[in-house]
Amino acid sequence: MRQYISAALLLSCALNASAQTTPNGAQPATRHNLMPVPAAVRFGAGRLAVNKSFTVAAKGHVDERLRAGIERAVRRLEGRTVLEFARGLAADANAATLVVECKGPGQVVPSVEEDESYSLEVTDKQAALRAATVVGALRGLETFLQLLEGDREGFFVPAVSIEDRPRFRWRGLLIDVGRHYEPVQVLKRNLDAMAAVKLNVFHWHLSEDQGFRIESKKFPKLTGLGSDGLFYTQTEAREIIAYARERGIRVVPEFDIPGHSTSWLVGYPELGSAPGPYKIERGAGIFEPALDPTREEVYKFLDAFLGEMAALFPDAYMHIGGDENEGKQWDRNPRIQTFMKEHGIKDNRALQTYFNQRLLKILTKHGKRMMGWDEIFQPDLPKDVVIQSWRGPQSLAEAARKGYDGVLSAGYYIDLIFPASEHYLADPLPADSNLTPAEAAHVLGGEATMWGEWVSPETIDSRIWPRTAAIAERLWSPREVRDVEDMYRRLAVVSAQLEELGLTHEKNQALMLRRLAGGRDSWALQTLASVVEPVKEYRRYEVRPQTMLSPLTGLVDATRPDSDAARRFAAQVDGLLSDAPRFETYSQDLQSTLNDWHNAGPQLEALIDGSPALAEARPLAGDLSQIGTIGLEALSYLSKGVTPGSEWRNARLAALDEAARPKAAVEFVVIQSVRALVVAAAELPALKQTTPDEWKTRVKTLAAPPAKKRDQ
Amino acid sequence: MRQYISAALLLSCALNASAQTTPNGAQPATRHNLMPVPAAVRFGAGRLAVNKSFTVAAKGHVDERLRAGIERAVRRLEGRTVLEFARGLAADANAATLVVECKGPGQVVPSVEEDESYSLEVTDKQAALRAATVVGALRGLETFLQLLEGDREGFFVPAVSIEDRPRFRWRGLLIDVGRHYEPVQVLKRNLDAMAAVKLNVFHWHLSEDQGFRIESKKFPKLTGLGSDGLFYTQTEAREIIAYARERGIRVVPEFDIPGHSTSWLVGYPELGSAPGPYKIERGAGIFEPALDPTREEVYKFLDAFLGEMAALFPDAYMHIGGDENEGKQWDRNPRIQTFMKEHGIKDNRALQTYFNQRLLKILTKHGKRMMGWDEIFQPDLPKDVVIQSWRGPQSLAEAARKGYDGVLSAGYYIDLIFPASEHYLADPLPADSNLTPAEAAHVLGGEATMWGEWVSPETIDSRIWPRTAAIAERLWSPREVRDVEDMYRRLAVVSAQLEELGLTHEKNQALMLRRLAGGRDSWALQTLASVVEPVKEYRRYEVRPQTMLSPLTGLVDATRPDSDAARRFAAQVDGLLSDAPRFETYSQDLQSTLNDWHNAGPQLEALIDGSPALAEARPLAGDLSQIGTIGLEALSYLSKGVTPGSEWRNARLAALDEAARPKAAVEFVVIQSVRALVVAAAELPALKQTTPDEWKTRVKTLAAPPAKKRDQ
Repeated sequence: MRQYISAALLLSCALNASAQTTPNGAQPATRHNLMPVPAAVRFGAGRLAVNKSFTVAAKGHVDERLRAGIERAVRRLEGRTVLEFARGLAADANAATLVVECKGPGQVVPSVEEDESYSLEVTDKQAALRAATVVGALRGLETFLQLLEGDREGFFVPAVSIEDRPRFRWRGLLIDVGRHYEPVQVLKRNLDAMAAVKLNVFHWHLSEDQGFRIESKKFPKLTGLGSDGLFYTQTEAREIIAYARERGIRVVPEFDIPGHSTSWLVGYPELGSAPGPYKIERGAGIFEPALDPTREEVYKFLDAFLGEMAALFPDAYMHIGGDENEGKQWDRNPRIQTFMKEHGIKDNRALQTYFNQRLLKILTKHGKRMMGWDEIFQPDLPKDVVIQSWRGPQSLAEAARKGYDGVLSAGYYIDLIFPASEHYLADPLPADSNLTPAEAAHVLGGEATMWGEWVSPETIDSRIWPRTAAIAERLWSPREVRDVEDMYRRLAVVSAQLEELGLTHEKNQALMLRRLAGGRDSWALQTLASVVEPVKEYRRYEVRPQTMLSPLTGLVDATRPDSDAARRFAAQVDGLLSDAPRFETYSQDLQSTLNDWHNAGPQLEALIDGSPALAEARPLAGDLSQIGTIGLEALSYLSKGVTPGSEWRNARLAALDEAARPKAAVEFVVIQSVRALVVAAAELPALKQTTPDEWKTRVKTLAAPPAKKRDQ
Repeated sequence: MRQYISAALLLSCALNASAQTTPNGAQPATRHNLMPVPAAVRFGAGRLAVNKSFTVAAKGHVDERLRAGIERAVRRLEGRTVLEFARGLAADANAATLVVECKGPGQVVPSVEEDESYSLEVTDKQAALRAATVVGALRGLETFLQLLEGDREGFFVPAVSIEDRPRFRWRGLLIDVGRHYEPVQVLKRNLDAMAAVKLNVFHWHLSEDQGFRIESKKFPKLTGLGSDGLFYTQTEAREIIAYARERGIRVVPEFDIPGHSTSWLVGYPELGSAPGPYKIERGAGIFEPALDPTREEVYKFLDAFLGEMAALFPDAYMHIGGDENEGKQWDRNPRIQTFMKEHGIKDNRALQTYFNQRLLKILTKHGKRMMGWDEIFQPDLPKDVVIQSWRGPQSLAEAARKGYDGVLSAGYYIDLIFPASEHYLADPLPADSNLTPAEAAHVLGGEATMWGEWVSPETIDSRIWPRTAAIAERLWSPREVRDVEDMYRRLAVVSAQLEELGLTHEKNQALMLRRLAGGRDSWALQTLASVVEPVKEYRRYEVRPQTMLSPLTGLVDATRPDSDAARRFAAQVDGLLSDAPRFETYSQDLQSTLNDWHNAGPQLEALIDGSPALAEARPLAGDLSQIGTIGLEALSYLSKGVTPGSEWRNARLAALDEAARPKAAVEFVVIQSVRALVVAAAELPALKQTTPDEWKTRVKTLAAPPAKKRDQ
């Protein structure tokens, strides 16, 4: 038997050098680009060449899904290597470069019970991928693709032994197509990306106040009046479900009720708790319309509609939302109030529980397990309902202790524009959760949530990727894999690989900036866009209100979360300050970057003069120049060892505070690093009386930004 | 009545200044970004603001096609301005920003007889677009979008009077989906781009030796065995036809016979002139298989098949190819030889004419006009057949004199990778063609041809756009509009606008270079890619053979025709040399560019070390560095006024000749400019004995590249 060292150990080694000796002293370990990191991986000696004679053979169970999966993997390998490989499976398994050996097809309908494990054994002769199911083999093929490397000798896969299986069996991405409709091809390319990082649940949020997106043949007014004509036909839904299944991905549909249901009521106002008429919501936020839980007609409707959907969507689970219903329509409806009194229903929460219990009967009748958001977790809730938590792992653990299955989404709200590092460290089952193994088994996994207020087909990929790959790793890899720096290193590689699947998260930014620049030179605008990010949480709507019909083509839409440039700049500033008192490390790079910012400002103002769509960004041009100038001044003080006066320091910090205020719904994410340079220059005298390490700690403390209320 | 000045006159004015006085002395003319240039345009005083209260009203005839066209235009305007406009048509035409007034729907089925004319009258109060047909209105809407400008006051459309109509009524783009299949969405976005530059014929080349791409319900083996599963269903074809019609574009299908027909014969070998069996061709070139024109079963098949297609494709024309059949199978088939003797058919050309006449009867029976390539133009050809010429305007004029309608494609072969300027100057009806007006009317127009040997869904847009916009202008605008420099200026603007329609000609290059760089910094590779182009004409296959199954992801695929960087560099070198003897103009820019090339070389080599897919590009890294070095040396001599020895000159020119040789199927397109710098430095002494102008002419002559055989 082979020995495996833990991925976490490997990673901590990998951070220090690109090739190292493993504990047994014989084999070099390699710094790899695998994401998610496998459960166990051990690199060996040697390499398997990938050249034009590359072939794949299959042993054991072979079916169309496996064939197609291998075909797709081989085409991607061709694209990367610019080599043409033989089509189809090779007849001779002994001579093949890669042999895929599957035991069986696995679940007919993709299921939470699917065995996704696989092993991958690469020697200098052959790669052997073994799995119990086709889905396991698909997961292994993605790992194989991520192992591809190249040097002067050519392409190769390093010798390696991998035993892999997911930590959680529910690893999802929610896409809200209610607020903004996303065409079928957008969903397909995102399913491809999900498969590339081993996610296995597409949570399709199909209805919202702002749009009803799935065709019902029984109730055609749902889309006829509630969708602006933007919806999926049942044929298209089946196409998406089949496309997902091909990639080992489940499709869990969500019909959000009783709140978030305005779009239902446009066509069927009789279901509402107020007489109507209703129209499609155009704003963002929480709205009052809610289904009337006291009327039998409503359950008759839901029975017929959900029955139709249960036949369309084969997954065992159906999500009924249940979130953010404040019950204001209920409060104002005398009939509902009378009903509550007559039935001893004491408040709106109890009324919603009553609604959920009725719903549960309907779903059970149609053979589905019910799933809903945190709010549905009420005392009388039956045990076979699944909770999706936007509140956090504590609420999930509490549910698990009571015997409920749960899925974590708190921490994975990618629409809030937080960096990948924050999502990465959120764990559905933290080490300190103190659950028994039986309780822990109720924590099924997690889901990233792409809420749709501010995404269009042009921008949505950049809001999902690459950050969601970090979440995918959290949900697949061992808990101990949590090195943020190494995650970012691998994330950059994976991000580029996702582009081969048609993802637009990288390439659309340049296009959007070119459009804003009206076809003129957009260098200055690119420079600005590289160091700002959209405002976080739900502030965008507050500071720059728009409707669901507004064009999403502004600067805030072109900018992206998790600025690479800011992270690199911060690392360089850190390197420079660590090099006290010489201040030479990275000083050239920093000078060049700061000069670019300094120069981009005036160019940007000239560009804005001819691009009224950028008028809102005018103050940012001055800010950018000033941030550059301040940084250059601080650099100069540091390199000359001259201490500036406190007046300089105070004026510059005040200027940076001003620049830090969001404008045009974006904010600079390099201010903190420039603050550190300013404070460091001002603290130079302290350096002489202390060690560089102590001095740097002091600089960091003093450079901390003014306390900010983190609201919402 | 308004007075119109000719567009050509306007352009020649526009080249000298951005705002000028028109002949009547009262109104400022504006340098515009219109492409194609309208038949008559006159700018006036004032401007129409485009702000958030922008609305569109419609008068006269209004139908769904017009509504949808207006809706699309308004959404694009929103995207550019980042303003949200009211949905739907405004009720009050007097208060609307833009009023569209259509007389009638025009042709039900898009037709060569369609009236595409329109007028556009913009004052500071309102824009009025008037057209006889909906298609005319769609053309005018594109012009309106191209008129949008912005400054510190906001967005606006300048006051202008435009009377516009096309010079030619057949303005096409052929897309060959036979050699490489292109998904429906690729065709759709290209139809959008065609409409944006007022092209009106999508010539759908649906069958080739390498693939049969349209479903036949009568003969399912055509796609069943001849397409690798890559074909359009009839439902998809109808979707494309409807999409094109919505944009005022005809769809002319081509079924290329009797040659180019291998893919037909894979499923139906009994139609061939040799017994078979046949398999799908994977190479590029001319192949032998041809239908057997001597067998009645073949005509029975064609009658049934073309009848099915005639019902599917509503256009009045059907293209039967007819090109490049060398008749080798016919020569070797004794039965065919006997048939020819019995029927007095003297050679293969006559046999093909016999075939065409039989075909013509079939098409006539099914209500279609026949169209074919040059080769079908034989003595006995009936007059209602349309000739598509790949030979040139002379052959077209000859046909026109004999009374045949014709369409020019010679000069518009965009797959040959020539610059837009060459295509732009090719004229279907040159001033010297000496045709009578009646004869000239037979010249219907022209078609750009996107032959499919070396294009994938990822690269095809970059082979079509933006160059095809220059061809579109040639086919729409007055003959006198032929200023190349101004064409390029406007082309850059249009190119950026095409991106809003989803075209990928710009954004996919960066993605392809990132993939080649394996996710590492691709700056050096970008620098290389900016100054090389794919080899021209049909040399690619000679120097770098691939099959139709090969990945199109190499450096040659990532590079593009018509390098902007090379054109800019050439203009700067010209500016520098015109500034003799000071040599200051552009010297900073040139120095910076040459330095980049010099520095990119070594970085590129390091990149190639880890990217085996770039191994073929290794010699280019050294070349790039050397070109940079040589240019810097020459610049230095010029700026110092020091003359280098003839040894230096000869060595550097020899090195440039070596660098000019294609590698990896790409070639540098800046060599000529660097040669000019070297020769200029060597010719410095001559400058003292002559005028700068004479000296520059001498430099140009001496710097001309070694004579090169332009084969094929």
